[in-house]
This record gives sequence, C-alpha cells and structure tokens, in this order.
Amino acid sequence: MPKIKILTQSDLMKAVPLDGEAVDCVENAFAALAGGKVVMPPILSLAIREANGEVDVKTAYVPGLDSFAIKVSPGFFDNPKIGLPSTSGLMMVFSARTGVLEALLLDNGYLTDMRTAAAGAVAAKHCSRADSATVCVFGAGMQARLQLQALMLVRPLKKALIWARDIAKAEALAERVARENGIAAVAVADPEAAVSAADIVVTTTPATEPVLKADWLKPGQHVTAMGSDQHSKNEIEPACLLRADAYVPDRQSQTAELGELRSAIEAGVVPAEKKFAELGDIITGAAKARLTPSDLTIADLTGTGVQDTAIATLALKRAAQLDLGVAFDSDA
Amino acid sequence: MPKIKILTQSDLMKAVPLDGEAVDCVENAFAALAGGKVVMPPILSLAIREANGEVDVKTAYVPGLDSFAIKVSPGFFDNPKIGLPSTSGLMMVFSARTGVLEALLLDNGYLTDMRTAAAGAVAAKHCSRADSATVCVFGAGMQARLQLQALMLVRPLKKALIWARDIAKAEALAERVARENGIAAVAVADPEAAVSAADIVVTTTPATEPVLKADWLKPGQHVTAMGSDQHSKNEIEPACLLRADAYVPDRQSQTAELGELRSAIEAGVVPAEKKFAELGDIITGAAKARLTPSDLTIADLTGTGVQDTAIATLALKRAAQLDLGVAFDSDA
Repeated sequence: MPKIKILTQSDLMKAVPLDGEAVDCVENAFAALAGGKVVMPPILSLAIREANGEVDVKTAYVPGLDSFAIKVSPGFFDNPKIGLPSTSGLMMVFSARTGVLEALLLDNGYLTDMRTAAAGAVAAKHCSRADSATVCVFGAGMQARLQLQALMLVRPLKKALIWARDIAKAEALAERVARENGIAAVAVADPEAAVSAADIVVTTTPATEPVLKADWLKPGQHVTAMGSDQHSKNEIEPACLLRADAYVPDRQSQTAELGELRSAIEAGVVPAEKKFAELGDIITGAAKARLTPSDLTIADLTGTGVQDTAIATLALKRAAQLDLGVAFDSDA
Repeated sequence: MPKIKILTQSDLMKAVPLDGEAVDCVENAFAALAGGKVVMPPILSLAIREANGEVDVKTAYVPGLDSFAIKVSPGFFDNPKIGLPSTSGLMMVFSARTGVLEALLLDNGYLTDMRTAAAGAVAAKHCSRADSATVCVFGAGMQARLQLQALMLVRPLKKALIWARDIAKAEALAERVARENGIAAVAVADPEAAVSAADIVVTTTPATEPVLKADWLKPGQHVTAMGSDQHSKNEIEPACLLRADAYVPDRQSQTAELGELRSAIEAGVVPAEKKFAELGDIITGAAKARLTPSDLTIADLTGTGVQDTAIATLALKRAAQLDLGVAFDSDA
C-alpha cells in the first residue's frame, strides 16, 4: 500500500488560514453540489447519551476531484468541565479511484471550523447587500469570531455588535475583534437594538430555544443561522422564515432535520413538502436569493460533507506546497 | 490533546491472530447487541460508480466499554487490475467519555477479515450440530480460508470441500488448507454433491445470483451465508429460507437490506414484516436456533459495527500488552 501522509493540527493551521482561497473552495463545493453529480450520503450520527456526546460522520464525493474526505466530528459537551474542548476529530482523505487511504488530517476540528466559517462568508456574499457594513453576532465562541473574520473577506464590515448570554464573554470577544481585526466591536446587552442596527445578523449559538425574534428583523437584512446542527437546536423564531423573502438552506434534506427549517416545519410555518433553492443553486445562478436591496434573506447552514471534501483537498494541496507532514507506512 | 496510538497492519497482525479470544470477543459483542443497549446507527455508504467502488462506515457504542470504534471500509473492485487489493481502510478508536481520538488502526482491512471470520465461528457454534465434521465452502478467496480456520476453533472439522467458479483457485486453497490447517481438503467441481456431503456449508462469494440451491440442502445442516453485504449480492436461493427451521440474521435491519433476507423478501418467500431472532438472541439464550439434530439452520451475516468496536478494543488491549505501535502528537 502507498504511504499515508499525516498532518497534525499545527501543520493544518499553517496550511489553511481563513482566507479568500478557503472561501472560494467552499463556494466551489456548493456549486458542485448544485450540479447534482456530487454523491453526499446522509450523515451518520452516533449518540452517547451517558456522556452528553454525539459523533457525526460526513462525506461527499465530488466528480472531478481525485480524492474524497470522510470526517469524524465528536461533540462531547461536558468536556470543558475536565479541561478538554467539546469538539475534536479528524478527516481522512481517500483516493476516489482506488479507495486507498492517502492522508490523515489530525485537525482536532480545526478544518471544520474553517470550512464552517467560510460557508458563512459564501452565504453573505450571495445573499447580503454588497454594502453591508454592520454585523450583529449572537454568541461569543470560536465561530462567532471566525464568522466575523470570514465576513470581512467578502463585505466592507465596519462594525460588529456582539450579544451573548454571558456579556463578559461578549466583551472579551469585542475587545479581541477590535484589536485583531481592526473594526469597531462592542458587546451589547440588548439584542433587539443590535439586530435593528445591523445589515447582517449571524447566529452562532447552541440554543435550543430561539434567541432571534422575527419582530426584530428589518427589510434589507441578511441572516445567517449557523449554530443548529442537531435535532434539538433552534436559534431563530420560526416566524423569521415567514418574514424572509428568501430562505436558503445549505442542503434542504439536512436543514429539515437539523437546521432552522426543522422547527419552522414543526411550528406549521413552512409546509414540509415546500422546496427551496439551496445555496449552491444561488451560487450557480440557477436561482436568486436577494432580488432587491429591501429583501430579507435567511441562510440556514448545518454543515455538509462536500465542504469537508473541499477543505481537505485544499489542505493537502497547500501542505504539499509547504512540504508539511510526515509519510507513514501502514504495512510496516 | 492526548497522544494518539498508531498501529500498522503488521502490528495488528501480531496483536490479533484468528484465535479463541477473537471469537469470544465477537460472541460477546453480539450478546451485547441483543441486550438492546448498544447504539448502532445505520451504515453510511458512499458509492463511486465511475470507479466501481463503495465505501462503508460502520460504528457502534457498547455501554461498559471505555472506547468505541468507527471503521471505514473502501471496496474498489477494479483495483486488482492495477495490482492493489479490492478492500482496504482503517479503524479509529475514540474515548466513549470524551470523544477524543485514542488510536488509529491502519489495518488495511485486516481486522475486518478477522472479525468477519470470527462471526462465522460464532454462528456455527450456536447453530450447527456439535459433531459437524465436514464443511463445504463456496468461494476460494481470503474469507473462504479464514472461515475454515475459524470453524476449526469451534467444531471438530475433519474435511473441507471447496467449490469455486475457477477450480484452479479452489485447488490452490485446498492444497494450502491441507498443508497449513492439517485437515483433508479437496476442490470439487460439483457443488451439489459437495453440499450433500457437508454438515456445514459456508458461502463466501460476491455472487449476485444464487450459487447454493435449496434442493441441495439436507436436514441437520447448518449454512452460513457471509458473502452478501451489498444490495446487489445474493448467494443462496430464496427458497433456502423456506426450507430452514431457523433463519438467524446478524442484524435483521441489515440483512433485510444487504443480506440474503433481501432477495428472499423480494422473491415473496419471506414477508417483509416477519421478525427473526438475531444471532445475539441465540447467544444470550433469549431464543433458540437449532432444536433437534435434524433441523436445518441458516445464518445470514452482513457484518456489524459492534463487531468492529469489539475487535478494535481487543486489538488495543493486545497491542498494549505487546508494546506495539507508536504514540503520535496531533497538536505538534
């Protein structure tokens, strides 16, 4: 068997910063998905209730790529109590011609963070007003920061308003964003006022009850809801979908199960059989999201296997350019 | 993050020979599955038709075990044309408490071969007559040899009759079995006569049309059909299930999709809603397979995630005892 390339988290952090190429690769992945030739099976999900944990396995094959990735994402939500991160995991890259294992990307979830943030940028690029300058972010974790950083790659952001249940965390993030990203950033106690002032709203929480109310939204805004990726999560009030001129799922079969569409269907706000154009359809031009500057658009991102295959492919290309990683002999 | 133990195929071949402990660990896994507390999600399957390939991902969580395995099994059936094996892949072992990756078992499919053969022994131990001495094997590949070897651990085998489409391969296997395993072994051209002389029949082929006919079977025999693990495969004539006094699936939800039960249901021989006791139920005594020496029993094995978690756990225990493998730092 050929040798296996092993890349560590620090290799991958060097190889794949959150930059325009990362955004482009995720954009291309969604466009490929819209082409109908990508093979993307349903997510395999293993729940370990005793440990408040769940492991998801995602994959996708993109015709034309020589390789495909399989990603394993454990999320164990009691880990912080013992000093470990909630999420970890790895990606594997296999030859699409022979199925042989080519690389192990021991990223501890880093590449997932990157491709998830990149998807937020892709959604904003294709749904939000081009002049969007103020963003309101719900949540103060890793994705709150990365979503902001990714948005700066596609929109002329000047100001970030950050709301979190724990305002101290919102303040810490605001301070960091102002320092590292060079935009105005403030923590806010009143989410309604913050939403009212925003061009783009991004929800990045693990909420199981809505944190964003439909009444707070205004014409012209774009919302990206990216926190929900499980049956139990729900960040935005179902009525938000009624108010939207365009609702854009990353993959409707997933958002109907794991995203904001699930609670909207359960609330009777959206008929289960209604079909929406997906993010990939908007990217390819097969459908349009925003028709006028006063439209309200909502993107619902649950995370797809095709993003994983895309970012893993980029990581391997960059790692080879930078001569990172070690070659390991599985027979030896 | 803690260091990751990496074991190569040769480490794993040292750590996990096909022995009684391997059979016991798979037997215990099926018993746990019958207890109803094991979490075993449906198989994730990714088909890459252009390359005549398919990748399956299997997993199971067994309460009481500190770890669980996720296995990735690629099967690319044009590989032999370019000198590569059809099957390869790896297992990953994660902490069941934190989800953290503990070990990579780079086995290229070796552990799958072992746990698959061990399941054949478990099925024969619990279904076949204790005095079974003659076995008829369909197929002359790796599993034909391993199934024979595994059966010798549980039954007093004296003779193996080997049929394959290519009789030269059957002859080569018979010669090897006689030499390595010390039992009489002959290649046969007439499968009907061979089946007639057998106490146990094991089918190990990738057949898509039945190779074993119902008319050939006799009272008192046990059949293990283990070749079918995909929607398209079918080794035994559906009427075999009608003739059987007991039909024992490894996991009925899988055999109804991927095993011999699928074609029996499609042929109208078995009602889709009929429930069968599974192998684990037989092991725990919750149900019985063979009631009399003249019963005809059939086990239908498609391969389950719980076997993977079991064999991976055994592999890690043995590797630690033998001080095999290297520790790898994913942060570094």
